Formats: sequence, structure tokens, C-alpha cells
Amino acid sequence: VGKPAVSIVMGSDSDLTLMEEAGKVLQDFGIQYEVVITSAHRSPKRTHLFVSGLIRRGIRVVIAGAGGAAHLAGTIAAQTILPVIGVPIPSSSLNGLDSLLSTVQMPSGVPVGTVGIGKAGVINAGLLAVQILALTSSTLSAKFTRYKQSLEKGVALKAQKIERKASKR
Amino acid sequence: VGKPAVSIVMGSDSDLTLMEEAGKVLQDFGIQYEVVITSAHRSPKRTHLFVSGLIRRGIRVVIAGAGGAAHLAGTIAAQTILPVIGVPIPSSSLNGLDSLLSTVQMPSGVPVGTVGIGKAGVINAGLLAVQILALTSSTLSAKFTRYKQSLEKGVALKAQKIERKASKR
Amino acid sequence: VGKPAVSIVMGSDSDLTLMEEAGKVLQDFGIQYEVVITSAHRSPKRTHLFVSGLIRRGIRVVIAGAGGAAHLAGTIAAQTILPVIGVPIPSSSLNGLDSLLSTVQMPSGVPVGTVGIGKAGVINAGLLAVQILALTSSTLSAKFTRYKQSLEKGVALKAQKIERKASKR
Amino acid sequence: VGKPAVSIVMGSDSDLTLMEEAGKVLQDFGIQYEVVITSAHRSPKRTHLFVSGLIRRGIRVVIAGAGGAAHLAGTIAAQTILPVIGVPIPSSSLNGLDSLLSTVQMPSGVPVGTVGIGKAGVINAGLLAVQILALTSSTLSAKFTRYKQSLEKGVALKAQKIERKASKR
Amino acid sequence: VGKPAVSIVMGSDSDLTLMEEAGKVLQDFGIQYEVVITSAHRSPKRTHLFVSGLIRRGIRVVIAGAGGAAHLAGTIAAQTILPVIGVPIPSSSLNGLDSLLSTVQMPSGVPVGTVGIGKAGVINAGLLAVQILALTSSTLSAKFTRYKQSLEKGVALKAQKIERKASKR
Amino acid sequence: VGKPAVSIVMGSDSDLTLMEEAGKVLQDFGIQYEVVITSAHRSPKRTHLFVSGLIRRGIRVVIAGAGGAAHLAGTIAAQTILPVIGVPIPSSSLNGLDSLLSTVQMPSGVPVGTVGIGKAGVINAGLLAVQILALTSSTLSAKFTRYKQSLEKGVALKAQKIERKASKR
Amino acid sequence: VGKPAVSIVMGSDSDLTLMEEAGKVLQDFGIQYEVVITSAHRSPKRTHLFVSGLIRRGIRVVIAGAGGAAHLAGTIAAQTILPVIGVPIPSSSLNGLDSLLSTVQMPSGVPVGTVGIGKAGVINAGLLAVQILALTSSTLSAKFTRYKQSLEKGVALKAQKIERKASKR
Amino acid sequence: VGKPAVSIVMGSDSDLTLMEEAGKVLQDFGIQYEVVITSAHRSPKRTHLFVSGLIRRGIRVVIAGAGGAAHLAGTIAAQTILPVIGVPIPSSSLNGLDSLLSTVQMPSGVPVGTVGIGKAGVINAGLLAVQILALTSSTLSAKFTRYKQSLEKGVALKAQKIERKASKR
Repeated sequence: VGKPAVSIVMGSDSDLTLMEEAGKVLQDFGIQYEVVITSAHRSPKRTHLFVSGLIRRGIRVVIAGAGGAAHLAGTIAAQTILPVIGVPIPSSSLNGLDSLLSTVQMPSGVPVGTVGIGKAGVINAGLLAVQILALTSSTLSAKFTRYKQSLEKGVALKAQKIERKASKR
Repeated sequence: VGKPAVSIVMGSDSDLTLMEEAGKVLQDFGIQYEVVITSAHRSPKRTHLFVSGLIRRGIRVVIAGAGGAAHLAGTIAAQTILPVIGVPIPSSSLNGLDSLLSTVQMPSGVPVGTVGIGKAGVINAGLLAVQILALTSSTLSAKFTRYKQSLEKGVALKAQKIERKASKR
Repeated sequence: VGKPAVSIVMGSDSDLTLMEEAGKVLQDFGIQYEVVITSAHRSPKRTHLFVSGLIRRGIRVVIAGAGGAAHLAGTIAAQTILPVIGVPIPSSSLNGLDSLLSTVQMPSGVPVGTVGIGKAGVINAGLLAVQILALTSSTLSAKFTRYKQSLEKGVALKAQKIERKASKR
Repeated sequence: VGKPAVSIVMGSDSDLTLMEEAGKVLQDFGIQYEVVITSAHRSPKRTHLFVSGLIRRGIRVVIAGAGGAAHLAGTIAAQTILPVIGVPIPSSSLNGLDSLLSTVQMPSGVPVGTVGIGKAGVINAGLLAVQILALTSSTLSAKFTRYKQSLEKGVALKAQKIERKASKR
Repeated sequence: VGKPAVSIVMGSDSDLTLMEEAGKVLQDFGIQYEVVITSAHRSPKRTHLFVSGLIRRGIRVVIAGAGGAAHLAGTIAAQTILPVIGVPIPSSSLNGLDSLLSTVQMPSGVPVGTVGIGKAGVINAGLLAVQILALTSSTLSAKFTRYKQSLEKGVALKAQKIERKASKR
Repeated sequence: VGKPAVSIVMGSDSDLTLMEEAGKVLQDFGIQYEVVITSAHRSPKRTHLFVSGLIRRGIRVVIAGAGGAAHLAGTIAAQTILPVIGVPIPSSSLNGLDSLLSTVQMPSGVPVGTVGIGKAGVINAGLLAVQILALTSSTLSAKFTRYKQSLEKGVALKAQKIERKASKR
Repeated sequence: VGKPAVSIVMGSDSDLTLMEEAGKVLQDFGIQYEVVITSAHRSPKRTHLFVSGLIRRGIRVVIAGAGGAAHLAGTIAAQTILPVIGVPIPSSSLNGLDSLLSTVQMPSGVPVGTVGIGKAGVINAGLLAVQILALTSSTLSAKFTRYKQSLEKGVALKAQKIERKASKR
Repeated sequence: VGKPAVSIVMGSDSDLTLMEEAGKVLQDFGIQYEVVITSAHRSPKRTHLFVSGLIRRGIRVVIAGAGGAAHLAGTIAAQTILPVIGVPIPSSSLNGLDSLLSTVQMPSGVPVGTVGIGKAGVINAGLLAVQILALTSSTLSAKFTRYKQSLEKGVALKAQKIERKASKR
């Protein structure tokens, strides 16, 4: 068993299904990760303990998701030198606009690299972590190059089936 | 020298002029207060130390102001049982909408009693602290009753001067 | 039968299910409360009568919930020296953004301590009332300390079940 | 001296310059009006007295302007059967979006006829009052017809001067 | 058969169910009304014909509902001296924020008295029309006084059933 | 088989059902079109190839639909001299407000003629393309004149059925 | 003197300086244009006359700018088969968000090709008109191709001066 | 002369003063960087050339700033496997809300790590780049640890001067 390189953190177990999308991406790239549930607000001590062990555990990138007054990513970023990727989770009333602004509008000195609201954002958080780790791994960087090619091919394949039928000439 | 009952906290010394409006209110009511500058993001340890000493110092109400991804009030609320009043400070780009949402949209379990954006909000934060302290002080409660009467009278006085001149009959 | 210390007010009986969440919190802390239905707009006389009896009835904190052009909390705050907690109830078209702004953006002189939109906000309104009452009750203050510990433990318990399974090493 | 038909109410003397634009419109149409300063929040008693005397004073239309959590128009509408026109006054942080939503999003049962934010809105509030009063005055209705013709002519006059010069053929 | 005093106009037959709420209000007050379907954009000629016949048909107040880039109320207001009440109809993507801003933000010279988005707004449009007509009808004005009393009573009745049960003392 | 005059492009096959509404409009006017699926982000090479062949293929107008950070229309506009019509597709979290702003707020030098969010916008994109092509086709221009007449008639027909029944005189 | 091909319309002479940016673009491309001032709301007859003469005057594309409840472009589009380009002019309170939504969110059947808010949008309106006219003019189309090349070159020229100095290696 | 590790790209030379804040951060950490001006929309070829040379030039992290329909970061991210940090530059009308949404709401597959709007965001973009590069440099990682300590100390120093004076006991 190896050490996880990425920590996927979320404020509540109800966010697990969504946040696991980032895990799936990491698995596809063969990157080990830990899943951690801790709330900046409800479990501040647990959060503090979690952050203070990050480097010792060998974590290199943190992906943190939260909704509403989403402070988790910022709280972690305040206490670590690791790059932190923030995922704004859709909130019940304001559709994640509050989550987005709470995550991205950090004061100078403490960056959170924020991705989009919801599922696309979570997947992209995983991919951004891969891109960062790929800077020092030619294997990962080759895999990511192939991934981007597969995106192109994926669009082309779907397109071919549909375009001819749908065009009217 | 007595002990301060209210702690006015802000993330940056640039917020001092604005946040002192809350202090002026407290002074008018004869309430002692401390002014503390600490950032949830830039000085998390200082913030933690500050919060853990609140009850020992005799503080009963916390007024916390921050802008942008405004986590200060929430971070404090996460670590204390004292009532926390959050002041959204206007931000340069989004005029404090981000500050407001980051302060008020707290997850269940950790309330922040939020007041309006900017100067009116800061003054109201001071007044809300007075109202809370007045629950156990008949002196304060009498003073606050007079304050509310003075609001009525203040409007009436200004109105009398203006209304006759401005009305056209 | 004792006297209620908190008044939970709402503009419409359709808000009852939501607003009762604040009542549940108070019950958990052994705090008596009254539930009142009165509208700032549809029943202004009833609202006025309600407010003028607050202190006589021994109420110490008011929790007021309304949606849309949500004036209930502000109307009450205008007429009492008690601390008023405002709950923005989600509105059908604008998801409670109108409720939030109508509740929180009070003019200087008349604070409303506003919590988040919807259910989390209602629960937090109850907790904020407890925090205020706990300032003068060592029983309540001990209970609230335990409540906060239970939040930490609750997160930890859920986390332990999930984290190991979800992490991929 | 006749009786005023319109009451122009505002929450603060600082709104006078803006709100007087409605008065100018009324004067142009020869309609008498009163100017009243009272705040829904800071002077609720004065506001209540003001509203309860409206019909006795012969007022037929109320124009109420307020900013932020703008409750003045709604508070008046709650207590009178007269048509109430609400003017959202620009607020310092949110540019009047809060004023607009607080004024217009009234619950069913208590309408406020809301005009635009700021100066154009204030002028239109005056004009809407004229239109309502013109329903029972052939003089006013003739004047308003001429006013609308003058709008057309005003555009045409300005246009003629500019259009030829600006067009490039 | 008498002449209708109010014209309820909408841009599309799909708005009928919603806009009929205004008609129900008028019926309750014994006011005759016409229902007209015409679009500012799809049937500009029909709209022009409709507006130019308003006064001849004896209409005294216009209620116009539209969604999205909601120009119907403004287009009518541009061509008549009658008071026009605008109803922002919820739109599919932006929940009626576009409808609200398109209806209320009229340039100076052409007011639209705007009510809230959706059903509460439509009902209030009907009530505002009643309030305007009540200025010259003691019957209507007495009815409206009773209507407001019934609002108070309605709240009180519902409240009595619920309050005792829900309060915990 | 003739050459298509319009290219309907979208970023994902999941947008096909929506974007085909533009195709139906073109078909109704007898205009040939191609349907192309390519993503500004996932298949930039394919997008580049697509754009560089536009003029050779005889395309005269491009209709491009995308959601979220909707760059497709802008990316195409950057590389062609053809008029580009942008369709903001509703996004899951922000209802298409992000799509709208990403499409319409282009820097000076590279216009995208943007239509409304969602289905009405897609249909209008088709119609705008027809209007542009009609500038050089008297057949199309006559057809579009008839189309606009049919809009008027369509409203009138629906109206007649409904208006009499709904009016209460 | 030739005939203008483009009509630049605006609701108020105060918009002239801004809207003339579109005229400058047309002049650069040697396209004649007329400048017209007419308001959808203040001068509806003038607007109607203006629209009904468009085709007779030989106009092929309309550029219409307005602010607030910006109906001008939509009103014109409702009455002509010509392509209409809408320019949302910044409004005093809501910074043009109201103008944008009022212009772009047109109902299906009546498209307005909308460009960005303010100066960049106005310039782009001129360019979009050129692109449309270039479809039937090889001269214009060659000019536009050169224009796009000049954009590339313009960026490159500015870049070369700056990049070397600013880079730190 | 070494090779730059970070590329700071912006769409216009007018963004240089703002974007250089990221460069200052990199200089403070001894990291070489290039400054590039190229627009996704005005100079797409230059942008393509720029991106295709990134890896050859040894760039490891890209910082891209743009405003309005801010596509630059996304366009670059579409064509490289390097991590891209997006900076939303304040726009003239919508204060950067458009820039933020255009930058952050990327579709799944193509992440842009987005920082806050404006100056704080630019500085944070520089710091996030440092954090990423620090993953493979113990020198940088030690420097960043000291940087975070200096943030704490900076707050403490400013605080000491101010707190005593401002507190009223």
C-alpha cells in the first residue's frame, strides 16, 4: 500500500457522492488519495488536526469542497503551504453562487485555486490535481496528454454519428 | 480599569476606521470593548489564540468584520459558544455581496448573526451587542429604551424643519 | 408552566414547518418558547400588539422569519429593545435572495441579526438564541459547550465509517 | 390654501433632494402635496401616526421612498387603503437592488406599485400619481395628454439638431 | 352588461392561468374587466390597436403581464395616459429577474407601477387597481377597508389554531 | 444536394435537442444547414479545423451554442469574418447567467450577436440567421414578411378564443 | 450622396457620444449610416414612423442602443424584417445588467442580436453590421479580413514592446 | 540567464499594471517568468503559437488574466497539459462578475484554477504558482513556509500598534 498524494476533503458526508467524482479521476490516472470528512465550522479541531498532518502523510495537493458560506478550502489554505483546490458545492437556496464567492474571493496571501460549481467542477478539481502532479512525473504527463487526445477523439466520435443525420442539405 | 465585554475583531488594519463605528456605539452606552486585528486566513494561529482566550478575558459578545471570502466571523463562531455578530465589509469588486454571503450562509450548527453591509451594518453590530448585554442590565436596557426614543425624536426634529418648507399646498 | 423566553414569529402559517426547526433546537436546550403567526403587512395591528406585549410576557429574544419583501423582523426590531434574529425564508421566484436583502440591509439604528436562508438558517436562529440566553445561564452555557463537542464528535463518527472505504491507496 | 392630494414620504432627510423630483412633477401639474419624513424603522410611532391621518388629511396617493431594507412603502401600504407608490432609493453597497426587491416583492394582499431605482423612478412616481388623479379630473387628464405630446416633441426637437450632423452619407 | 373598467393584458395565452388571479380579485370587488392577449413583440399592430381603444372602451386601469424582456407594460404605458400596472411573469431561466428589471426600470416620463414577480404580484396588481378605482367610489373604498380587515382576521384565525399547539411552555 | 448556408455548432451532443430548434426554423424557411459538434475546450483542434473550412464550405452565418464558461461562439468569432450568433445554453447551477455573460461580453473587435438563454434564444438564433440571409434574397425576405404576419395572426387567433370567455363584464 | 445602409438608433441624445463609436467603425469601412434619436417610450409615434420607413430608405441593418428597461431594439425588431443589433447601454444603478436582460431575453419569434454592455459592445455592434454587409460585398469582406489581421498585428506590436521589459529571467 | 518557469499572460497591455503583481510575487520567490500579451479573441493565432511553445520553453505553470467574456485562461487550458491559473480582471460594467463566471465555470475535462477578482486575485495567482513549484523544490517550500510565517507576524505587528489604542476599557 502506497501513500496517498491527494487529499479530497469535504464538510459533510452528504457531499460524498459528488466529491467522489474527483476520486474517480485520480483513480483513472493511478493516483492514490485519501477521503476526509471534516467541517471548518462543525469540527474545527478535527480540521486543524487534519491540516497539520498533511505534509507528514505525504499529501501534495488538497481538494476541498463545501457549500454555502464555504470556508473549508480557505481554512485549509490558511494553514498549509500545499496548493489547495476549492470546489464550490451547489447550495439549496442560491445554487452555489454563495459557495463560489466564499471559496474564490480569498484575500491576498492565501490562494485557493477554484473550479466551477458542482459536478464539472469536482471532476476538474481531480484533473487539476493530476496536472500539478504531472509536472514531476513523465508517466502522468504522458497519460494526461493521452487524456486530452481522448477528449478530442470523444467529441469527434459522437459528432460523426450525429452530425450527418442532423444536417439538412 | 474594567474588563471589556465586547470584542471587535477585524481581518485587517485597513478595516479599522469602519469597524470603530461599532466601538463608538459601545462607548456611548458605557460598554468597554477590545479591538483586535487578526485574519482568519493570514494569521490563523493568532486567530485561534484570540478565540481561545475570549471567555477567560470576560468577553460576552464578539463583533467580527471581514470582506470578500469573509470567513472571520464563521471561524470564530466555530470555536466559541459566545454569540458572534458578523459584519460584511464592502469588497472592491463585488460591493460586499461576496462578504455578505460568506458571512451569513453558515451551515446549521454554527450561527453568525449578520448585519448589513458597511457602515450602517457596523453601527448596528454595536447596537445588537448592546441589546444582548441589556438583557441582564437594567441600566443598559433603560439606556437603550432612551436611545430608541431619541431615534424617534431625531427623525421628528429633522422632519419639522424640512417638511413645512418642502410641502406645496 | 413557565414563561417562554423566546418568541418564534412568522408571517404565515405556511412557514410553520420550516420555522419549527428553531423550536426543536430550543426544546433540546430546555428553553420555553411561544410560536406566533402575524404578518407585518397583512396584520399590522396584530403585529403591533404582539410586539408591545413582548417584554411583559417575559420574552428575551425574538426569532422572526419571512420571505420576499421580508419586513417582519425589521418591523419588530423597530418597536422593541430586545435582540431580534431574522430568518430569510426562501421565496418562490428569487430563492430567498430578496428575503435575505430585505432582512439584513437594515438602516443604522435598528439591527436585525440575520442568519442564512432556509432550514440551516432557522436552526441557527434557534442556536443563536440559545447562545444569547447562555450568557446568563451556566446550565445553558454548559449544554452549549456539550452541543459544540457533539458537533465535532458527530463529524468524526460519520467520517470514520466513510473515510476508510472511500480512500484509495 | 388647499389640501394636498399626494403625500411624498421618505425615511431620511438625506433623501429629500432626490424625492423632491416627484414634488416638481406634481407642481408642474398643479397638484398640491405634503412632504413627510418618517422612518419605518427609526420612527415607527411617527410613521403610524402619519398613516392614520392620511385619509383625514385628504391624501389620495402616497409616494414612499426608502433604501436598503426598504420597508417604508410596505409599512404604509399595510395600514392604508390608498394606493402606495414605492421608490427604491439607491443604496451605498448594492446600488438599490436591495431597495428594489424590498419594495416590490410584497406578499399578496398588500400591493406597492413600484417604480425604477433612483431619479428616473422618483419622477415616474410623481407622474404615476398624476395619472391616477387624472382618472377623475378632465383638466389633469388633458394636461397629461399634452405632457405626453411634449415628450414626443422633445425627442423630435433634440433629434433634428443632432441627427443630420451625426449621420454620414 | 356594463363596461369593463380594467384591462388585463398578457403577451401569451400561456400566461392566462396566472394572470386570471388578478381577474378573480376584480370579480370579488364587483369590478368588470376585459382580458386581452397581445404581444408587444409578436403582435405590435394588435397591441397598438388595443392601446388606442382603451379610453374609448372606458378602461381606467391597465394590468399588463409579461416575462423575459418584458416590454408589454412599458409599450402600453408609452401610448396611453392611463395608469399601467406591470406584472413580471417568472421566466424559465432567470426566474423573473429579467422580467422584473425589464418592467420596472422605465425611463423618466413613462411610469409603470410594478408589482412582485409571479402569483403574489398578479393578485396585488388586481388589488392595486381596486385601490385606484376606490379613490372615486365609496362602495369600493368601504369594500377595500373590509378586505384589509379580513386580512387581519384571516391571520388571527389561522394563528389561533396553530400558535397554542406549536408553543412549548 | 445544395450547400448549407448556416452552420449550427454546439459544444456537446447533449445540446442537440435544444439546438435543433434553430435547424427547424431554417428548414421552415428552406435554408440548408450543417450541424456540427465541437467543443472550444475539449476539441480545440477540431474547432479550429471546423472554423477554417467555413468559407470554403459556403457557410454564411454561424449559430454557436454553449453553456457555463461558454466560449464556443467567441472562439469561432475570433477566427472568422462571418457573423456569429451566440446562444447561451442554460447551465445546471447558474441557470445560464454564466452562459449569457460568457457569450455576450466580448471585447471590442470580436462581436458575437447574442440571443436569449435557452429555447426561445435558439429559435431566435435561427430567425436572425434567416433575417441576415433575407437581405440578399427576395424570396426569403417575402417569406419572413409572411412569417411576421403569421405571428400577428397567431396571437389574434389564440386571443379570440380566450378573450371573450375570460373577460367578465 | 449615397443611401445609408445602417441605421444607428438611440433613445436619448445623451447616448450619442457612446453610440457614435459604432458610426466610427462604419466610417472606417466606408459604410454610410444614419443616426436617429427616438425613444420607444417617450416618442412611440416617432419610433413607429422611423421603423416603417427603414426599408424604403434602403437600410439593411439596424443598431439600437438603450439603457434600463431597454425596449428600443425589441420594439424595432417587432416591426421590421431587418436584422436588429441591440446595444445595452450602462444604466446608473444596475450598471447595465437591466439593459442587457431587457435587450437580450426576447421571446421566440423576434430576435435581437445583442452585443456587450457599453463601449466595447457599441464598437462590436458596428463590426457585426459590417460582417453582415460583407456577406454580399467582396470589398467589405476583404476589408474585414484585413481588419482582423490588424487586430492580430496590433496585439503583436504592443506585446513586443512590453513583453521583453516585463519578463524577468 | 535561466529559463522562465511561469508564464504570465494577459489579453491586453492595459492589464499589465495589474498582472505585474503576480510577477512581483514570483520575483520575491526568485522564480523567473515571462510576460506575454495575447488575446484569445483578437490574436487567436498568436495565442495558439504561444500555447504550443509552452512546454518547449520550459514553462510549468501558466497564469492567465482576462476580463469580460474572459476566455484566455480557458483557451490556453484547452491546448496544454500544464496547470492554468485564471485571474478574473474587473470589467467596466459588471465589476468582474462576468470575468469570474467566464473563467471558472469550465466544462468537465478542462480545469482552470481560478483566483479572486482583481489585485488580491493576481497576487494569489503568483502565490499559487509558487505553491505548485514548491512541491518539487525544498528551497521554495522553505521560503513559502517563511512567507506564511511573515503573514502571521505582519498581522501581529500591525495589530499591536493599533489594538491597545483602539480598545476602550
